[in-house]
Amino acid sequence: MNWIFERAKPFSQDAKMSALRRQLQLTKPQGSLGELESLVVHLAGLQGVDRPHIRAPWVTIFAADHGIATEGVSAYPQEVTFQMVANFAAGGAAASVLAKQHNARFEIVDVGVIGDTSVFPSVFVQKVAAGTQNCLHHAAMTDLQLKQAMKAGAEAAARAQAGYADLFIAGEMGIGNTTIASALLAALANVPIEQVTGAGTGISSEKIAYKQSVIQKILSCHSHSLSVTEKLAAMGGFEVVAMAGAYIRAAQLGMPILVDGFISSVAALYACNINHSVREWLFFGHLSDERAHQLVLDLMGAKPMLALNMRLGEASGALMALPILRLACELHEQMATFAEAGVANKET
Amino acid sequence: MNWIFERAKPFSQDAKMSALRRQLQLTKPQGSLGELESLVVHLAGLQGVDRPHIRAPWVTIFAADHGIATEGVSAYPQEVTFQMVANFAAGGAAASVLAKQHNARFEIVDVGVIGDTSVFPSVFVQKVAAGTQNCLHHAAMTDLQLKQAMKAGAEAAARAQAGYADLFIAGEMGIGNTTIASALLAALANVPIEQVTGAGTGISSEKIAYKQSVIQKILSCHSHSLSVTEKLAAMGGFEVVAMAGAYIRAAQLGMPILVDGFISSVAALYACNINHSVREWLFFGHLSDERAHQLVLDLMGAKPMLALNMRLGEASGALMALPILRLACELHEQMATFAEAGVANKET
Repeated sequence: MNWIFERAKPFSQDAKMSALRRQLQLTKPQGSLGELESLVVHLAGLQGVDRPHIRAPWVTIFAADHGIATEGVSAYPQEVTFQMVANFAAGGAAASVLAKQHNARFEIVDVGVIGDTSVFPSVFVQKVAAGTQNCLHHAAMTDLQLKQAMKAGAEAAARAQAGYADLFIAGEMGIGNTTIASALLAALANVPIEQVTGAGTGISSEKIAYKQSVIQKILSCHSHSLSVTEKLAAMGGFEVVAMAGAYIRAAQLGMPILVDGFISSVAALYACNINHSVREWLFFGHLSDERAHQLVLDLMGAKPMLALNMRLGEASGALMALPILRLACELHEQMATFAEAGVANKET
Repeated sequence: MNWIFERAKPFSQDAKMSALRRQLQLTKPQGSLGELESLVVHLAGLQGVDRPHIRAPWVTIFAADHGIATEGVSAYPQEVTFQMVANFAAGGAAASVLAKQHNARFEIVDVGVIGDTSVFPSVFVQKVAAGTQNCLHHAAMTDLQLKQAMKAGAEAAARAQAGYADLFIAGEMGIGNTTIASALLAALANVPIEQVTGAGTGISSEKIAYKQSVIQKILSCHSHSLSVTEKLAAMGGFEVVAMAGAYIRAAQLGMPILVDGFISSVAALYACNINHSVREWLFFGHLSDERAHQLVLDLMGAKPMLALNMRLGEASGALMALPILRLACELHEQMATFAEAGVANKET
């Protein structure tokens, strides 16, 4: 699995500076487009062109089940993972609707769902196992399974590149996965359990207290997991590992990445901890309503584009932010310069 | 001018409740789409249907010059108002680019630009005068001019309705108009000048201090202006008054409104102070980087959709937020219900 340590594609300072010079010539006060300017200038450096674009966004939803779900940490029964895969495939889930609106390629990858998802033609089946082990009693996955899940993620990034994608978005589905993401975060950030635990799909404050006790037990069981990849194997889940693998590979292949919410950001945090060069390839779509998301973003020095109190996952927050990034590109490309428009520039 | 006091079209509680019931059935945890849910439910009440939509957004840019510009309060010379009208007409301004991307109807109304804008076929010329008077020495406009500017705004709203618009967006262009908007805000909110004065198009902190002294003088000159409309006539400008008129008329005609940044929000604040029933027809696109915008929003209890540090005006912030509102509608319309998708709902 040495591929995960290979450096991301280099950033082009030349393209960035060229885009920056263009920004200064467009008919608007300098800096008046705020974040849109920094977004497009950074994207220029990533894409290596002075006028970047997003014409072919790609969305991969990684779905998997979690042994921890049997502990009753979610507001929904475990079967919902499989049922939501069906809903994604049929076009009825939030992410399906948004991807269609954006004309984005949309694929679902089963990396560990309980149940036979091969009945849905649009699901790509790369099942590592039928759910992870319950990490209260076992490691969530073996080393071999970790490698398989990482590889499934990398293969999604490779498919995206083969499909000429110019932006990669990952989403996740897996009942129980906020519990796992919270445990992963606590294990990496070394912060109190209370700071990392939220309402997930919408549990009561009593159930949050119970969820915290479960997370505490998970951490006690796996305090021996020292390396970043060992922590991932110990707690899971397959979709989190696949997302981390996809982010690493997308950055190596030179595809800018738009990160979704809490669980995706924890996967991104692990990807960056495995391979620091991934960080500059990440854009962050939104600040989730899930309590610990701000902490994850802070750990990466990330500034999300939106804050709409969303907490759905499935790439939905990233897909809401996609127009911001696209419109920033259109403005950069199509606005007239002061010279072209015959507009007087700032008095100095 | 009694029309400005006529009540806005009534809100449909039935449609709102019907939309709310639908939201509870969609395949997502309740509330997990955050602000998107409240936006679409409110829009349902405004449009009087349980599945609202935005198919035909309409943008009117009101442009006018300001006598106060001769005091050197802006980073740009006064000619830029005319030059930017040309740029809007040619499609090179930020708002032109964004409107085109959204397939929105886009018109420019000259309510008081210095110079002959009739040379641009796409400019609607309703010039009240060639700029307002310098409000340090005179009232910015006469009562008759106030009525004409209000009417120009109302007529834009009427054209939008005649064009089957289902969302009304106003933008503004007028060198010097953040100074005027700051003075209008201070006059209405009774707060210190420092709190209402920002960098506008990007002036230095020294020039901000000078701008504050100008605003102080404006307020001293017009402390006798007691009514809301008297304040508008005293300080101007034509495009601010036209926006207020447009907002009032759009609400009366039953067109939801998406408000842009600082100057648009001051116009909206005046519209609401003239006619409280306008308030519920307003959505707010973004929080501007212009210092006093948060205060204006607070005075209306408004929560903007975006906060991207933009400070360009021209409807650009509203046009960046438009996809949020549209995608909220698409999700509401197209997502599957729990029953349709065969997904188990929350365990209770």
